[in-house]
Amino acid sequence: MSLLTVGSVAFDALETPFGKTDKIIGGAATYITLSASYFTKENNLVAVVGDDFPQSMIDDLNQHGVNTEGLQVRVGEKTFFWSGKYHNDMNTRDTVEVQLNVMENFDPIIPEAYQDCQYLMLGNTAPAIQRIVVERLNNRPKLIVLDTMNLWIEIANPDLMTLLPMVDVLVVNDEEARQLTREYALVKAAAKIREMGPKTVIIKKGEHGALLFQDNRIFSAPALPLAEVFDPTGAGDTFAGGFIGHLAKTDDISFDNMKRAIIYGSAMASFCVEKFGAERIMNLTQEEINKRVSEFVNLSAFGLE
Amino acid sequence: MSLLTVGSVAFDALETPFGKTDKIIGGAATYITLSASYFTKENNLVAVVGDDFPQSMIDDLNQHGVNTEGLQVRVGEKTFFWSGKYHNDMNTRDTVEVQLNVMENFDPIIPEAYQDCQYLMLGNTAPAIQRIVVERLNNRPKLIVLDTMNLWIEIANPDLMTLLPMVDVLVVNDEEARQLTREYALVKAAAKIREMGPKTVIIKKGEHGALLFQDNRIFSAPALPLAEVFDPTGAGDTFAGGFIGHLAKTDDISFDNMKRAIIYGSAMASFCVEKFGAERIMNLTQEEINKRVSEFVNLSAFGLE
Repeated sequence: MSLLTVGSVAFDALETPFGKTDKIIGGAATYITLSASYFTKENNLVAVVGDDFPQSMIDDLNQHGVNTEGLQVRVGEKTFFWSGKYHNDMNTRDTVEVQLNVMENFDPIIPEAYQDCQYLMLGNTAPAIQRIVVERLNNRPKLIVLDTMNLWIEIANPDLMTLLPMVDVLVVNDEEARQLTREYALVKAAAKIREMGPKTVIIKKGEHGALLFQDNRIFSAPALPLAEVFDPTGAGDTFAGGFIGHLAKTDDISFDNMKRAIIYGSAMASFCVEKFGAERIMNLTQEEINKRVSEFVNLSAFGLE
Repeated sequence: MSLLTVGSVAFDALETPFGKTDKIIGGAATYITLSASYFTKENNLVAVVGDDFPQSMIDDLNQHGVNTEGLQVRVGEKTFFWSGKYHNDMNTRDTVEVQLNVMENFDPIIPEAYQDCQYLMLGNTAPAIQRIVVERLNNRPKLIVLDTMNLWIEIANPDLMTLLPMVDVLVVNDEEARQLTREYALVKAAAKIREMGPKTVIIKKGEHGALLFQDNRIFSAPALPLAEVFDPTGAGDTFAGGFIGHLAKTDDISFDNMKRAIIYGSAMASFCVEKFGAERIMNLTQEEINKRVSEFVNLSAFGLE
C-alpha cells in the first residue's frame, strides 16, 4: 500500500569525533523516505526546500522511487539548515546553528495523487503542521505514525496534545517519553502516552534497542552492539522509515507484524550510523539488508529446550 | 552437577524511595545460593559470618537446600555489614556505612565434601580471596564464573588481572566493563576483557538487559520492563545464581545453553527487585518462575514470516 511521508528535507552540517561535513542532505523526511524505499515502491513525499537545493539530490530521491510531486521548491528562499556537533560518547549533541528558512512558513500541500495513501508517516516537524496534513486527507489512512522531539514537547505542548488522539503510533526516544509524561519508568510512560491517544507506543533506546507497547503486550527489540557509531544523525528517522515501510509493504498492522517492522527499522538504523548523514542508506542492497536482519534474529533468538 | 559458591554472607540495611529496613540478611553468596537453589540441589556455600548471625537465617539457607558446611561462624566476631541508600532513579546508590568485620581476615576453607564441585561461582569479594578458592580446589572445575565490582577494579587491579586468566566467564555491569577496559563501546570492552582471560563475558545493563559475548557471537537478552523497582539490592547476584544454577543443573556449557541460563538469571533478578533484600527470592514457586520465564520468551520473540 502507498505511504505518505511529511517532514523536513534539509541541509545538515555535522561534526562527530570522526570528522566533519560541509552541507549534506538531511532532514527527517529524507531519511524516512530513503529507508522506506527499500520496502515500498509507493513512497510519496510532502516537504519544502528552497531553490538552493540541488536538483541532483531530488534526482537521488526519485531514483530511490520516492515521488517528489509534493516536494515544494520555493524560488528565492533557502532550505532549512541544521548544524550539530556530537560529544565523544555520541549520545549527546549540541545544536550549533539552525536556520528555519522555508520551514518557517511551511504549508504542507497534498497532491491529489497522494490522497489514497493508506500509511501516513508524520516525520518530526511542528505538531501544528503535522495536524494540517491529517486534516487535509479526504480519508483517514489505515495507520498514522507520529514522530516528535523534545523541542515540540517543550514549546508546542498544546498542539502536540491535540494531535496525539489523531494518531495510531507514537515513536519517541526514552528521554522524550519521560519528558512527555514525567514518568521515569518506561512502562509507566508508555501507559500515560497511550492515555493521551496513540494505542501503540514505540520507545527507542538507542544502543539498548526499542520497546513496543500495545494493550498489555510488550515487545523488546535488541539493538546490534556496534564497535563504532560513526554518525547517529537520522538513525531515528531511518528506523521509522523501515518500520512504516515494512507495514505499508505488507499491509498488515497486527502486533506480530509490528514486531517484525521494528526489527526491519532497527536493521536500517544500524546501517545509517555507519557513515555520515544519509550516505549509507542511499547505497544499500537487498542482500545487505537481509544479512543484517538475520544478524538481529541471531542476536536475540533463544530456545528453552 | 554440584555448585560451589564463595562470597559474602552479610547484614544489609537498605533505604530506597519506598522505605527502609533494619539489618536484614544480604551478601553476594546469599543471593547467589538462594537463586541457584531453584535449579540445583547440590548447592555448596563457602563464606564467613560472626556469632551475631542468627541460626534461623542459616536454617533458611538449609531449607533451600544450601549446604552450609563451608559457612564459618567466628565466635566473638561480627558479621560483615553494609548499609546503602538508593537515589530516586534507583540507578545510583550511596554507601552509608561498611563494617568489614569477619571479612577482613576471611580465609576461605573448602570442606572436603565440596572438592568434587564442577561449577564454581566466585561471588563478589576481594580477588585475592577468589583466587585462593580456585587454588585450593584439587581439580579445576568444569566452569568458573567470576563476579567483581568497581571497588576491586580500583583498589585490587593487579590481583584481578592475575585472576582473570583463571576463569571462564566474567559477569560485570556496563560501567564496570568500561572501567576495566577504558572502552566505551561494550563490543570493544568485551573484546578487551576476553584478551584478559575469560573466554566468555556477560555484561549486565540493568533495565536494558544483558549481553553475552563468546568468540564472534553475541546474544542480547531483554530485561522485563518494570513499573516499579522496589529494591535493586542483590539483583546482579541473583542473576548470577540463576545463570550458574541452570548450567550446573543441565551440565551443558554450550553457547545455546548459556543463552537460556541468562534468561533464567534475568527472570530470577526480576523477582529480586520486587521486595526488600532477599525476601522475594526466599519465597518463590517453580510455577512463578516458569510463568516469568515465559514472559521473557514473549517479550523478545518474533518470527520473520
